[in-house]
Amino acid sequence: MNIPKITRASFERHLPILTWSKTYDRDTLTSDLVAAVIVTIMLIPQSLAYALLAGLPAEMGLYASILPLVAYAVFGTSRALAVGPVAVVSLMTAAAVGNLNLATPAEYAAAAITLAFISGIILTVLGVFRLGFLANFLSHPVIAGFITASGILIATSQMKHIFGIKAEGHNLVQLVWSLLEHQQATNVITLFIGVSTVAFLFWVRKGLKPLLLAAGLKPRLADILAKAGPVAAVAVTTLATFIFGLHDKGVAIVGEVPMGLPPLTLPAFDPAMWSQLFIPALLISIIGFVESVSVAQTLAAKKRQRIIPDQELVGLGASNIAAAVSGGYPVTGGFARSVVNFDAGAETPAAGAFTAIGIALAALLLTPLLFFLPKATLAATIIVAVLSLVDLSILSRAWGYSKVDFAAVAATIFLTLGFGVEVGVSAGVMLSIGLFLYKTSRPHVAEVGLVPGTHHFRNILRHEVETIPGVVTLRVDESLYFANARFLEDYVTNRVIKDTTLRDVVLMFSAVNEVDMSALESMEALNHRLKDMGIRLHFSEVKGPVMDRLKRSHFLDEIEGKVYLSQYDAWTALRNPHLPPSQTGAANAAEGPALAAQ
Amino acid sequence: MNIPKITRASFERHLPILTWSKTYDRDTLTSDLVAAVIVTIMLIPQSLAYALLAGLPAEMGLYASILPLVAYAVFGTSRALAVGPVAVVSLMTAAAVGNLNLATPAEYAAAAITLAFISGIILTVLGVFRLGFLANFLSHPVIAGFITASGILIATSQMKHIFGIKAEGHNLVQLVWSLLEHQQATNVITLFIGVSTVAFLFWVRKGLKPLLLAAGLKPRLADILAKAGPVAAVAVTTLATFIFGLHDKGVAIVGEVPMGLPPLTLPAFDPAMWSQLFIPALLISIIGFVESVSVAQTLAAKKRQRIIPDQELVGLGASNIAAAVSGGYPVTGGFARSVVNFDAGAETPAAGAFTAIGIALAALLLTPLLFFLPKATLAATIIVAVLSLVDLSILSRAWGYSKVDFAAVAATIFLTLGFGVEVGVSAGVMLSIGLFLYKTSRPHVAEVGLVPGTHHFRNILRHEVETIPGVVTLRVDESLYFANARFLEDYVTNRVIKDTTLRDVVLMFSAVNEVDMSALESMEALNHRLKDMGIRLHFSEVKGPVMDRLKRSHFLDEIEGKVYLSQYDAWTALRNPHLPPSQTGAANAAEGPALAAQ
Repeated sequence: MNIPKITRASFERHLPILTWSKTYDRDTLTSDLVAAVIVTIMLIPQSLAYALLAGLPAEMGLYASILPLVAYAVFGTSRALAVGPVAVVSLMTAAAVGNLNLATPAEYAAAAITLAFISGIILTVLGVFRLGFLANFLSHPVIAGFITASGILIATSQMKHIFGIKAEGHNLVQLVWSLLEHQQATNVITLFIGVSTVAFLFWVRKGLKPLLLAAGLKPRLADILAKAGPVAAVAVTTLATFIFGLHDKGVAIVGEVPMGLPPLTLPAFDPAMWSQLFIPALLISIIGFVESVSVAQTLAAKKRQRIIPDQELVGLGASNIAAAVSGGYPVTGGFARSVVNFDAGAETPAAGAFTAIGIALAALLLTPLLFFLPKATLAATIIVAVLSLVDLSILSRAWGYSKVDFAAVAATIFLTLGFGVEVGVSAGVMLSIGLFLYKTSRPHVAEVGLVPGTHHFRNILRHEVETIPGVVTLRVDESLYFANARFLEDYVTNRVIKDTTLRDVVLMFSAVNEVDMSALESMEALNHRLKDMGIRLHFSEVKGPVMDRLKRSHFLDEIEGKVYLSQYDAWTALRNPHLPPSQTGAANAAEGPALAAQ
Repeated sequence: MNIPKITRASFERHLPILTWSKTYDRDTLTSDLVAAVIVTIMLIPQSLAYALLAGLPAEMGLYASILPLVAYAVFGTSRALAVGPVAVVSLMTAAAVGNLNLATPAEYAAAAITLAFISGIILTVLGVFRLGFLANFLSHPVIAGFITASGILIATSQMKHIFGIKAEGHNLVQLVWSLLEHQQATNVITLFIGVSTVAFLFWVRKGLKPLLLAAGLKPRLADILAKAGPVAAVAVTTLATFIFGLHDKGVAIVGEVPMGLPPLTLPAFDPAMWSQLFIPALLISIIGFVESVSVAQTLAAKKRQRIIPDQELVGLGASNIAAAVSGGYPVTGGFARSVVNFDAGAETPAAGAFTAIGIALAALLLTPLLFFLPKATLAATIIVAVLSLVDLSILSRAWGYSKVDFAAVAATIFLTLGFGVEVGVSAGVMLSIGLFLYKTSRPHVAEVGLVPGTHHFRNILRHEVETIPGVVTLRVDESLYFANARFLEDYVTNRVIKDTTLRDVVLMFSAVNEVDMSALESMEALNHRLKDMGIRLHFSEVKGPVMDRLKRSHFLDEIEGKVYLSQYDAWTALRNPHLPPSQTGAANAAEGPALAAQ
């Protein structure tokens, strides 16, 4: 009876908690608890700040850091990933919900909940149908350009809180224009709090750790203490505001944050809203997944563990559905907090569940303390966090590496800054695919000759090589498919039309991994044309899988020439056309070579 | 002074007429005139029939066969292409203009003229900017499926004329449903004319030529006479209708066709109509171009001539603009008539201009004779012509060759029949691109070992090969780019996590033609992971262009392993790790091999 065993394995595949909970012991518990305490301290100010960035009430940031973490602990495969609100997804949420032009904050919050729900459904469906590979179509240049541009947009969007003014906009031009328009209303105290917090946080990043190390702390502890900088900033500025009554002098504060556990919420089932939020939810899902899975993979590899990307989709999907039913908004795995979680010693996803308990306690007990927290402090933590995302050197690196990649980076940055996150990332993806198709549609073709004294063939333009009069050998450096089939057809036709002494054309297929039906059709047309001109078409170094496929058509029966095992065999046979094929290594085209280079 | 010469060459590039007109003589004139007479006879009934198919007045078919041919003679590069109305483009015109829901036949005709104008502009712009390669994204399976499905749709749409009833629809279900609904109104005389004409035309195709040959005619003449079948059918049925007064017995006739040369017309400059017609015009342009250029290339190669695809776009663009200003509708190069033109001995595009004179004479003098021409006769000529386009064997051929190609054919046929031409061809293109991206996103990766006694490496699953304990060599059979970079990263990670005795991984890059920035990023991530596991990453057989690119990044400095010229060098070095690199053929990774296999 194998069935229960299979069922168990299948259960474990879909509920990773069953795997790691079996070996859970006291040591693991201790490690997970320590990590949870550290991540909780880091996550509280971040959750509040990102909710502000998304344009939502501060408590929604806390709610998004409770149930989603529990859901991920059950369904996720990464042992160290810390799920919750993150900067880029918060920005995308603000853009998506902002586009709906809703009247009240309550409607705005309901739309964010719905967005999390749709995103959760999309992620789960992608995971169940194993469509995680779709995320691969977000190329590295597009992601890098998008993250950099998002960082700039986020930092700019937070400047209004630093100056204590109003400003609106979903692209850089709108934001900067709006800031300039309102700059006369700047509140000096707010500006002081904002600027000094930014300065403090930068110093914590760069200057505190060396100090702590000099004071004799262990590197890991110093690292973690340096990460608690935002908590200190929150405490000090909140206290200062309370003591000096700064809120009466125009400093915007968070105000009343409801005390208690997350409420039970339901997404709005409004078809019009769903259709407007679908594309934003899809983009949020894919961007969130790509970010999350890359950090999860990096951390897993450090311990020779593996994550299953399609199961990660289910884990993140469950987290987002959990966010939607508990007053949260879209979440994903965050880079910085996952690294902290990993460094602090988290061994299983239970650390995430313990973090959730920590945040829940904060929501139950600490929210009254947040009343006097200045918004400028939260804006400062966001600005310092996202400026580490901004990496304009990607532009110069891409320029140095490949102009095509540069085009994708530059377009994504430009369009994201100029037209907002959704246009930026969609155009980036389409451009990457378009440029890839364009590149493969014009493959490199080299005319090759024999390097004297060897069996090697090289480009006649780059090397001193021997050629045979009346014979042309072309090496094709790309798989042949519909987009480049006609290119090769034209290339060969134009090459042979110029040269009336030609009698043989050899296509060297060592780098051809695939010949689709369009390419087959093109080669048939080419063969007919060459036949009309009295030229024979040969092939060499055809790979096994390509040969298998060609044999299924009648093409190999139709060609006048032969299929040679190696280019050297072709050379020998065509140089000595009077030797019988058996002595020159030529395979019978109809039967196909038994040992085609594969 | 080279400038006049360059200018002349450039003129000739853009006005091909300058090339061939220089050597035009009496012999060429005779050949062209003979071909023109034969094509004119063939084109008259076809032009009328295709106008009927497009839902336009019969004379527009004639008008579309006059000025467009002259324009092509000036700008086109093919010596034998015969331009004019064709079946598939006429069907697409009917679909595009039908979607506008216009009230009167005059508005309908104006929209068709506008469609030709937009299509002419699109083709010209594509040609001027040398964007002809875009047509390559129409894969062979999509075109074949589309043409077959269009043939079925066209034949079905003509059944109403054979039965003498009314029927409407742009997809097969609508058409068949509409035919069944109206079948009780069948006119028996019309049905008799239609069925007997169809039978006659089929007999002419299959049975007449052997008879003529048996009667001692030359094969070429017999062939051309057999092509004149439609003219005979038109003459006989028109005469019969006139003599027996069949039009009074319910046989639908063409009626009054205005006598005279084409009128000067202008497209409607209505922005709403332009935006509705743009996509249909784009599809018509690309489908027309693909059809036209493939027949032009086939015929040119027979005489070792060449055509310039981008100039062909200009030629077809000029033809369509000419159609728009002279009361015509979208035109392109037709397959059957071009072959007839070629076989009849046409030597230059002047044959097309002479054909235009022939059709102009017909429009001036013969139109009164067409008054009693039954529509059933024209429908019969269309049905017989398009049934030769229907080739359902493409389904079984594609199935045998590749399931991916089969999916593209089947989807295109199904969607064209079920949802009309525009949905069918658009979905086909998107599906082809999607399937190609999917295929390349999951490349074939083989673990290879040494075939004993050789320097060759083969798949360990397929061959008896030697391997080195602690060393894994993976051959990647695809260029690495964003869509498959992470696949390879995961593949290698999963392979090494299973095997804790591993110390070296070699990636054999003989079939990798490209490594884009995403793939580079992935390999850097992979390298870091392997480093964390204490495994070195090596490369072998990296091609010159790929090596050039990798050298522009710092990747080669970062890897722990080496880049080997050949896989055999890698094997030797890793089998004897204590030999110095100079004896094992290893190149210094930082400098890169001077002679990387390219």
